[in-house]
Amino acid sequence: MSAESAKPISYRDAGVDIDQAARSLGAIAGFARATATAGTAGEIGHFGGIFRLPAGEDRLLIASADGIGTKIKLAFAIGGWAHKRVGGDLVNHCVNDILACGARPLFFLDYVAMGKIDSEALEGLVEGMAAACGVNGAALIGGETAEMPGLYAPGEYDAAGFIVGEVSPSAFIDGSRIEPDDLLIGLPSAGLHTNGFSLARMIVGATGGPSQDREVLAHPLPGGDGETIGEALLAPHLTYFPQVYPLVEQGIILGIAHITGGGLIDNLPRMLPDGVVVRLDQSTWTVNPIFRYLVETGNVEPREQYRTFNMGIGMVLAVRPADAQTVCDAISDARVIGEIVAGSSEWKVTIEQTIDGTVS
Amino acid sequence: MSAESAKPISYRDAGVDIDQAARSLGAIAGFARATATAGTAGEIGHFGGIFRLPAGEDRLLIASADGIGTKIKLAFAIGGWAHKRVGGDLVNHCVNDILACGARPLFFLDYVAMGKIDSEALEGLVEGMAAACGVNGAALIGGETAEMPGLYAPGEYDAAGFIVGEVSPSAFIDGSRIEPDDLLIGLPSAGLHTNGFSLARMIVGATGGPSQDREVLAHPLPGGDGETIGEALLAPHLTYFPQVYPLVEQGIILGIAHITGGGLIDNLPRMLPDGVVVRLDQSTWTVNPIFRYLVETGNVEPREQYRTFNMGIGMVLAVRPADAQTVCDAISDARVIGEIVAGSSEWKVTIEQTIDGTVS
Repeated sequence: MSAESAKPISYRDAGVDIDQAARSLGAIAGFARATATAGTAGEIGHFGGIFRLPAGEDRLLIASADGIGTKIKLAFAIGGWAHKRVGGDLVNHCVNDILACGARPLFFLDYVAMGKIDSEALEGLVEGMAAACGVNGAALIGGETAEMPGLYAPGEYDAAGFIVGEVSPSAFIDGSRIEPDDLLIGLPSAGLHTNGFSLARMIVGATGGPSQDREVLAHPLPGGDGETIGEALLAPHLTYFPQVYPLVEQGIILGIAHITGGGLIDNLPRMLPDGVVVRLDQSTWTVNPIFRYLVETGNVEPREQYRTFNMGIGMVLAVRPADAQTVCDAISDARVIGEIVAGSSEWKVTIEQTIDGTVS
Repeated sequence: MSAESAKPISYRDAGVDIDQAARSLGAIAGFARATATAGTAGEIGHFGGIFRLPAGEDRLLIASADGIGTKIKLAFAIGGWAHKRVGGDLVNHCVNDILACGARPLFFLDYVAMGKIDSEALEGLVEGMAAACGVNGAALIGGETAEMPGLYAPGEYDAAGFIVGEVSPSAFIDGSRIEPDDLLIGLPSAGLHTNGFSLARMIVGATGGPSQDREVLAHPLPGGDGETIGEALLAPHLTYFPQVYPLVEQGIILGIAHITGGGLIDNLPRMLPDGVVVRLDQSTWTVNPIFRYLVETGNVEPREQYRTFNMGIGMVLAVRPADAQTVCDAISDARVIGEIVAGSSEWKVTIEQTIDGTVS
């Protein structure tokens, strides 16, 4: 067959529809526009997103890239509101990461890759991202939507977020001033946030196709308040920025750990200077029903629980004892969950449990 | 079966190996460290990547998020050097995008998602990214590696890049000063760069499994200089920053279009003010053998060719006629490929072809 007589092949034949993508991008530009801040400059559609940074002293830009993990698989099964939910999760994950350095958000960009552009999912994702950007004062200034037939299964996608914030060098938080007898204040999580989902999905049996997963996720959560397992798993990744940043500005926060992959056990050490370790008292906080259900059903060992799930604590702040009450008064449901002690053991985090005994 | 007697389930059982991930992350931190610039502050491992921005006047931060498209599928088939190649492609794609606004890179972050951590692929990717960051003066300050079993097939992954650069408001380039009789200077591409791969893979028949694809990609490219089809398709996405930025600093570049998805037809209008259109003369540049092969084999129609592939031009600069020679002398193989004319047709780009006649 000569080239001349063959049916012409177009990009659309290969599974990529530039026009369809352009239409969805037009629709979501409105969501982005609603996130405009003082720094916003220029429309979406330039080759780069534009953010105006006013003249000023030395500053540190703090940046983070994050994903949603396999929580995203639950959004495929549930659809609708769940796309919006994981879009918001992505932003809040990024916001909390840079907050851990004392930074406030400036702007956010997203990367969304789909096998075929799914307008409902794409627009839901970006609507969720834009809403969360609004809450956190971040401008959504750009992103990339990639149509990648053959890499993602029909109805599936991945999304990554990228945030840039700023902090003055004098306000930068890295935990270096933490010392023995400082207190650790735990902020409750709403659930798994965006970590531990590969294990959670395995335990609840949501590792099949969307329709099978949908059935599993529709069961009521044992020990819950009537929510389904799916609703409990898709509880939002909370942003701690609105409540914590005013305290950061007061200069009373010495260290911040965002409890993501690796749990309390791997994330608390990231803020600790040499020569100190952490002792937590698990009886001081409430472990959400979803975690109780997961660790009992899966018979997950204590150490594994605290390295895979946040177990009810989404962020930990280190403060001087004299500042603890101020912090607990300012943040709803915040409480002292442990303390800094002198030491240098290999395991820097000890969690005392009233029921199961010491984890490590 | 009671929870007590069940075999405990760990995160590793669910396909996620935090320790393995940590080992690979340790290995690749070295690549990142080698990209340190004056702005680098703090080690990899903080919750956020840190970049010090010195005191200064008003500035614009220019940010871009990009992927590699389905070129990444070819890296799965070829492996080895190809992972490094697409890592570099990702950085160069981002660099060229912000260069189109007149910005120089400050820092870069990556997002890599795999079904299971594949150390060879991950380290190759990051080595390629770090090398390209070095060439472009960008510091690789952080990233996210996500292990997502069940979303990516074994041996497959996706990667996204995020870049932030800066430009002073007076040097910001958006094409608004472009006027009739300005000239367009084309910079040669090395091949497809990172766009058009879903169509290209379909045309060459590389849409099967890795071993089948590997066989197709090993054939010599008809009309080439002895390179295989795989080598031609995986030609690097060139960075134009080292050659173009000195001209940007001279203030003689009025508009820059990075020719990515949508080709010359969709990207040139992104730099055009109202009231002007573009006329290109295709006989002024060489269409790489890979494009000739693809459009002939696939019988791709002319308009589709120029909206899917860059067809040999990776970047277009708009300059005053008096500056054209300076620019062509400064950049290897740069040449005048067209001009700006007054007009306001729906199709803003006309490409005259010596063989096939006018495209639009």
